[in-house]
Amino acid sequence: MRIAQIAPLEIRVPPIAYGGTELVASLLTEELVRRGHDVTLFASGDSVTKAKLHCVCPHFLRDSDRDRGILNILNFVACLEQAERFDIIHNHTNFEGLATAGLVKTPVLTTLHNELKGDQFTLFAAYKGYYNTISRSAKDLLPDKKGFVGVIYNAVDCKSYPFHGKQGDYLLSLSRISEEKGTHIAIEVAKRLKRRLIIAGNVEAKDEKYFQQKVMAQVDGDIVQFFGEADYEQKRELFANASCLLLPITWPEPFGLVMVESMACGTPVISFNKGSASEVIYHGETGFIVEDIDEMVRAVGEIDSIDRKACREHVERNFDVPRMVNDYLVAYQRILKLETQGEVVTTLELAQATGQTIPYHSISSSTEIVKRIETVSKN
Amino acid sequence: MRIAQIAPLEIRVPPIAYGGTELVASLLTEELVRRGHDVTLFASGDSVTKAKLHCVCPHFLRDSDRDRGILNILNFVACLEQAERFDIIHNHTNFEGLATAGLVKTPVLTTLHNELKGDQFTLFAAYKGYYNTISRSAKDLLPDKKGFVGVIYNAVDCKSYPFHGKQGDYLLSLSRISEEKGTHIAIEVAKRLKRRLIIAGNVEAKDEKYFQQKVMAQVDGDIVQFFGEADYEQKRELFANASCLLLPITWPEPFGLVMVESMACGTPVISFNKGSASEVIYHGETGFIVEDIDEMVRAVGEIDSIDRKACREHVERNFDVPRMVNDYLVAYQRILKLETQGEVVTTLELAQATGQTIPYHSISSSTEIVKRIETVSKN
Repeated sequence: MRIAQIAPLEIRVPPIAYGGTELVASLLTEELVRRGHDVTLFASGDSVTKAKLHCVCPHFLRDSDRDRGILNILNFVACLEQAERFDIIHNHTNFEGLATAGLVKTPVLTTLHNELKGDQFTLFAAYKGYYNTISRSAKDLLPDKKGFVGVIYNAVDCKSYPFHGKQGDYLLSLSRISEEKGTHIAIEVAKRLKRRLIIAGNVEAKDEKYFQQKVMAQVDGDIVQFFGEADYEQKRELFANASCLLLPITWPEPFGLVMVESMACGTPVISFNKGSASEVIYHGETGFIVEDIDEMVRAVGEIDSIDRKACREHVERNFDVPRMVNDYLVAYQRILKLETQGEVVTTLELAQATGQTIPYHSISSSTEIVKRIETVSKN
Repeated sequence: MRIAQIAPLEIRVPPIAYGGTELVASLLTEELVRRGHDVTLFASGDSVTKAKLHCVCPHFLRDSDRDRGILNILNFVACLEQAERFDIIHNHTNFEGLATAGLVKTPVLTTLHNELKGDQFTLFAAYKGYYNTISRSAKDLLPDKKGFVGVIYNAVDCKSYPFHGKQGDYLLSLSRISEEKGTHIAIEVAKRLKRRLIIAGNVEAKDEKYFQQKVMAQVDGDIVQFFGEADYEQKRELFANASCLLLPITWPEPFGLVMVESMACGTPVISFNKGSASEVIYHGETGFIVEDIDEMVRAVGEIDSIDRKACREHVERNFDVPRMVNDYLVAYQRILKLETQGEVVTTLELAQATGQTIPYHSISSSTEIVKRIETVSKN
């Protein structure tokens, strides 16, 4: 299949450190190439790929003062201008491309990696293409709209994460440091328990005040330790040697890749019940889903009851690259089939057309996830 | 001819008060309709037009918290999606559409109403369409690029401006109030001369500090008076009864519509020698082009030497709507002719193709302007 992958220009593909969307775009791209597909990646010029690379800027933009809006639009349009070269265009950008997808005949699949806000809903309503979400909870936040092809969960390259099965002695907070990721709540949990907490992560300019006042002011080098932003190797070491990952998120994150990375190393995750947490963590088996700080504190005390091997196996089964790539290939093929039938169909129509009875869930055979969600929902 | 006009959504078309680009887009649209063309205007829903109106938002955006980037792109793409309905698409927006113009077969003409900055040059380099500037000085700031069709000066509806030929007693500063428009310099001129100055204009949020510290702090209700933003009628009264308009601009404004409005009322203009000033004002005949504050102070003393009737006639001849609309119709026809020849041509090629020997100037027969520019340049 001739496939275009459009990545955001914020971070190179794959990221050196932080960058969930760019990591997923990279894993998908490289595995599609490995399976023999003809893939062109539209990304920053310093990206590393075995696909054909097309770039409108030599370096990724995160630390530059270049205009993100303009360059991301140019990146997207550069792909549309060659649309006839592709059977399908797969868009991972932050909405820049949505408005223009209807201008070419090649079908566009947009993976909604981020939450929609404000007039992004107007843009989404005007979008003329297919889309998938990366969790059921993310789908639940969207208005009903034609073109939905299913939930496709993100994945990590499981074998690249170390697993030694031993429990470390520290609690871990690893994410972009911000109010919405709840770094300050992880600190409170550690202080109540008098357990060592290592905080690793990057800080965006908009979160600098939060970082100084709510995080750095609490760092004492003893109970609360600050690591800085962790790179590829450091991240794996930090996960593998932690007792558990604390994820007191205060927003409905569409998919927390960090949960999967932690479990891949055998390290269970304790998360607030927001966004995709209850879809990704098997409560009581690979971590705990909790409602507040008191419950998180209690859950840390019960972490020995979690089998670290079960965490690893859960990721191998449900969140490894082959499953994700299978899902996307099924989605591409369905879209091409629907295109030949001449119209964008609704979720329900899609389910009917493909013989499914569930309006939406992960496209692949990983029905186990859906089953588990239903179990958690009932409890 | 089937023509699409795309206006920015910042201000309704025509503007109630401030809004040069939207005023020009309105005058052009209405005159094209009057001449029998089939015109569709893409603008905010509260716009007033005899053309077909297509809108993606009910109200103009200036005083709203809606997302300008998203809505302007949707407005542009709404036009591209119907591109086959038009012989030509004429774009007046602030660059939002440039990236996408190459995605449709219908030719796009962009009028560059504003100065390019930063990555807008990247966007301009990638633009696949035709363009014109609204002054020679604006063209001189651009890199060389295919698709240039000429300089087309803006216009006003001359007959809508009162002319009674009598000189008023006050100096006038009428523009958006900001450092780049030089409102504080006009105040200094008035104070040195102990002549009454009326300041009228809107203030954008980014200029609020400048407005308070450099303008309002100087307002004494005697020498320096503040009027606020002037509407359609008020503006005409302020122009018609002024002794002269002071325009100590500190940036290369592509075209100062305010100069033409003032001269239409018979009121001469004294401007710093920036941007299009020397192209629009006939030095010594319809005002004065000066280099600094001292020269501006002296020029106010010589304002009686200017014939107010000559100011009015200058606008009737060179900056009235019929001339501008003629120019754009010639440009449209040339573009359609070039399209059938199969490629975008350079300025020089265009000049050769149309038998012109001057690489660029106003497209119309208003060669008098060019002649005058050359005279001023020599002096």
